[in-house]
Amino acid sequence: MTASLIGERIQDLLDRRSAVSLQQQLYRHFREMIEDGTLRPSSRLPSTRSLATQLGVSRITIVAAFDMLTADGYLVGSIGSGTFVVDRPPIRSHTVATRAVPPDAISLRGQLILSGASGLQQREGAFLPGVPDVAAFPYAVWQKLQNRYLGQHLAQLSGYANGGGYLPLRRSLADYLRVARGVRCNPEQVLVTMGTQQSLDLIVRLLTDANDQVCIENPSHWAGALMLKSLGVRSVPVNVDREGIDMRDQHYAMNPKLVFVTPSHQFPLGSILSSSRRERLLREAAQRNFWIVEDDYDSELRYDQAPSPSLQGEDSSGRVIYLGTFSKVMYPGIRMSYMVVPSSLVSSMVRGLLSLYRPGHLPLQAALADFISDGHLTRHLINVRPLYAARQAELRKCLAETFGDAISLSSGFAGLHLTLRFRQAVDLDALQAQAAKRDVLLRRLSAFNHDVGPFEDGFVLGYGALSQDDIGTAVKRLYEVYQTTHNGPC
Amino acid sequence: MTASLIGERIQDLLDRRSAVSLQQQLYRHFREMIEDGTLRPSSRLPSTRSLATQLGVSRITIVAAFDMLTADGYLVGSIGSGTFVVDRPPIRSHTVATRAVPPDAISLRGQLILSGASGLQQREGAFLPGVPDVAAFPYAVWQKLQNRYLGQHLAQLSGYANGGGYLPLRRSLADYLRVARGVRCNPEQVLVTMGTQQSLDLIVRLLTDANDQVCIENPSHWAGALMLKSLGVRSVPVNVDREGIDMRDQHYAMNPKLVFVTPSHQFPLGSILSSSRRERLLREAAQRNFWIVEDDYDSELRYDQAPSPSLQGEDSSGRVIYLGTFSKVMYPGIRMSYMVVPSSLVSSMVRGLLSLYRPGHLPLQAALADFISDGHLTRHLINVRPLYAARQAELRKCLAETFGDAISLSSGFAGLHLTLRFRQAVDLDALQAQAAKRDVLLRRLSAFNHDVGPFEDGFVLGYGALSQDDIGTAVKRLYEVYQTTHNGPC
Repeated sequence: MTASLIGERIQDLLDRRSAVSLQQQLYRHFREMIEDGTLRPSSRLPSTRSLATQLGVSRITIVAAFDMLTADGYLVGSIGSGTFVVDRPPIRSHTVATRAVPPDAISLRGQLILSGASGLQQREGAFLPGVPDVAAFPYAVWQKLQNRYLGQHLAQLSGYANGGGYLPLRRSLADYLRVARGVRCNPEQVLVTMGTQQSLDLIVRLLTDANDQVCIENPSHWAGALMLKSLGVRSVPVNVDREGIDMRDQHYAMNPKLVFVTPSHQFPLGSILSSSRRERLLREAAQRNFWIVEDDYDSELRYDQAPSPSLQGEDSSGRVIYLGTFSKVMYPGIRMSYMVVPSSLVSSMVRGLLSLYRPGHLPLQAALADFISDGHLTRHLINVRPLYAARQAELRKCLAETFGDAISLSSGFAGLHLTLRFRQAVDLDALQAQAAKRDVLLRRLSAFNHDVGPFEDGFVLGYGALSQDDIGTAVKRLYEVYQTTHNGPC
Repeated sequence: MTASLIGERIQDLLDRRSAVSLQQQLYRHFREMIEDGTLRPSSRLPSTRSLATQLGVSRITIVAAFDMLTADGYLVGSIGSGTFVVDRPPIRSHTVATRAVPPDAISLRGQLILSGASGLQQREGAFLPGVPDVAAFPYAVWQKLQNRYLGQHLAQLSGYANGGGYLPLRRSLADYLRVARGVRCNPEQVLVTMGTQQSLDLIVRLLTDANDQVCIENPSHWAGALMLKSLGVRSVPVNVDREGIDMRDQHYAMNPKLVFVTPSHQFPLGSILSSSRRERLLREAAQRNFWIVEDDYDSELRYDQAPSPSLQGEDSSGRVIYLGTFSKVMYPGIRMSYMVVPSSLVSSMVRGLLSLYRPGHLPLQAALADFISDGHLTRHLINVRPLYAARQAELRKCLAETFGDAISLSSGFAGLHLTLRFRQAVDLDALQAQAAKRDVLLRRLSAFNHDVGPFEDGFVLGYGALSQDDIGTAVKRLYEVYQTTHNGPC
């Protein structure tokens, strides 16, 4: 390919109205021409001067692009003799033979971690649980706030997050939690984490040893149980009823190191921990020196009344570790969660956080601090609560109209999901499989069961990301599938 | 002391021509004013906003300093009502606990995690290791790229990162690593993690069981050893010499599950793994079915010659797990790292990643993909390599001119640090303490020692974030301190 031909080819490819700079375009196009063989190995490139003239581009721009290509190993140049494509240019696509997993490659611990329903990829559509309506989020505001910290300030926010997180965010959170959840804490008790899984991991690593016992709600979210088993800790599933976790004498008598609870809105069954059980749990924790881990994952989303106050706010003995997340009230991918730890644990937890995860993302933490303190979070919650409330009401209405007495639904007017159980025996496998064929994705309640005994299975129906029309359609399909699999075609 | 008086006092103390950053100066002056009682216990501090105005310093700088003081237990943020000196300020201790830690609160595992030098807060200034020059980073470009994905696109990128990360980023990384490091992989083998600690955690959790044995370099970075002990795995320290890790027959004979290595630029000693040792390591891994974990943490920063090719590229048996990070080539707080796993481990590793951490930050991953594919990363490296090369040369020159034959330095013309050892016995504790008083912060080499036997201690000197003037000043101070502590005043 002659020098002028190369120039013409590039000329055709350059887009002078593109947001991408000419230097980057030159870099990209030359690289592609080398990789696809248009420019042969060892072939000579036009001089930067002639190319500059031909393309009407500053020579500096072309030199800079050639520098990048040289640094990347596509070009070699020597003063005087010009610039050449290297003898053996990097080949773009190349296949690596896929191997089978070697025997015993995955450890027993690894197999425990990979077993179970934990690692599901998140998909969209009815009725996947735990998915908020990301369309309702104020992206323009959020972008503006983030840009406060992405410019010149970023240099000062480019390091690790020391001491538990960005202090203004911890202040905003302490303020917000006091008002919204009755949490009593100083900002330094608030630790910012990269997700509730990280909060749980830190707690289990610092406060338990292998073979210790930890009481968990049954059913409950898989994350807690997963962290426990991946660290060799024995989880003791405790039954959940309409009053929340049913801790009995024998559970307290085994002196658990931790008790994981979701008192404000049990996941997934939706019950609220009764005051008598709260009192005893707090009393026993103080007497027996175990820690209560309160996961308040979606308490902001309560639609009929104010959420029951947090256990942390009722705790006078410093035994409650409070967990919260922005996955539900903002969006899942933000990966920002927080924990409020008793003052006695602050210094240990902060050091553990630094050692184990080296947190960062300070610009995001700074923007989040403003999002809360400027009132945007409150405003957003005011917007989405009626949205979710209407969707749950619609789901209840549609299910009642179709299934009638054949089903029972979880109580509580809160959150982003309902649990559904059938009063009579139903082939849930068949129902789940058939529904999936019609894009109705059902999560089994048993996916959250950690016990060996008999378990009343059912489905967890998420409605957070569904319009009311979507809900109507999905319920209709679900009922049609139910009729064909259960009663046979009508 | 009134708010404005505090401001005036600080104003007098600030030295705007000092090599020490304003943030560090604020931190130290406030700490001293608290420790010497100038600022009384429980007294209120001026607001960061008013202090920023009074001092003419960015509010973020003041917030960052207060953040450090709070983490260190000098300040508390009381809900809504500002920042106060704690009731009982620590003298030398670094704790914020206002309630004593209950006996046995921290588990044995937790105590292991919290022991050792791992959890140090990152400070600025000479000679802290591992800190790149964040001032040289192209923030404007980075902000522009991020904004491509912070607007309306965010809704589509607001979920979790499924399947190992944002595919375009994994493609860009596969391309980049093939060219820059000779890594042979398909994009599916590239997993995006939230830091090398997370990469290590995933590997150790999935591929080892408690009491398994893992060979690590000695000395080596604390993160690997920390992950191992926090998961009950026994680490076997293997001596490092001029040819890198010195794996002997007995080490191979114990059939380790993993071997952690930094072959391109051993951390912290700087040696390069010799070809004979590379060949044997790869051969033994294939025969004995152990995994080699290659941490290529700073191979982009090599100044005299092209870095030695990655072990991964020489591995024909699929036994190498390759680790890389953006902490050095971009900035530490970005918390984006990656691993290239053998094809046989891809599906297990991807599922483990999802289950254990639920990754997200897709907008950041998307911007990073463009940063690489548009050539910005390459260009940034072209800019900083000569910068760091000059700084290391300056450090070597200054040390040679002052200390002469009294010291020996690590070999290798790469990275962001040098290791310094004294040929004769020196009171390193005294030297370290005295130097710290003059803002010369020395990291002990023994902080990276994992063995029980005798160890030739020294210092790890980071120069990445220091101007050549800073280096000259710091070395001068270090030598003065050395003379007073070693030979007595001259």
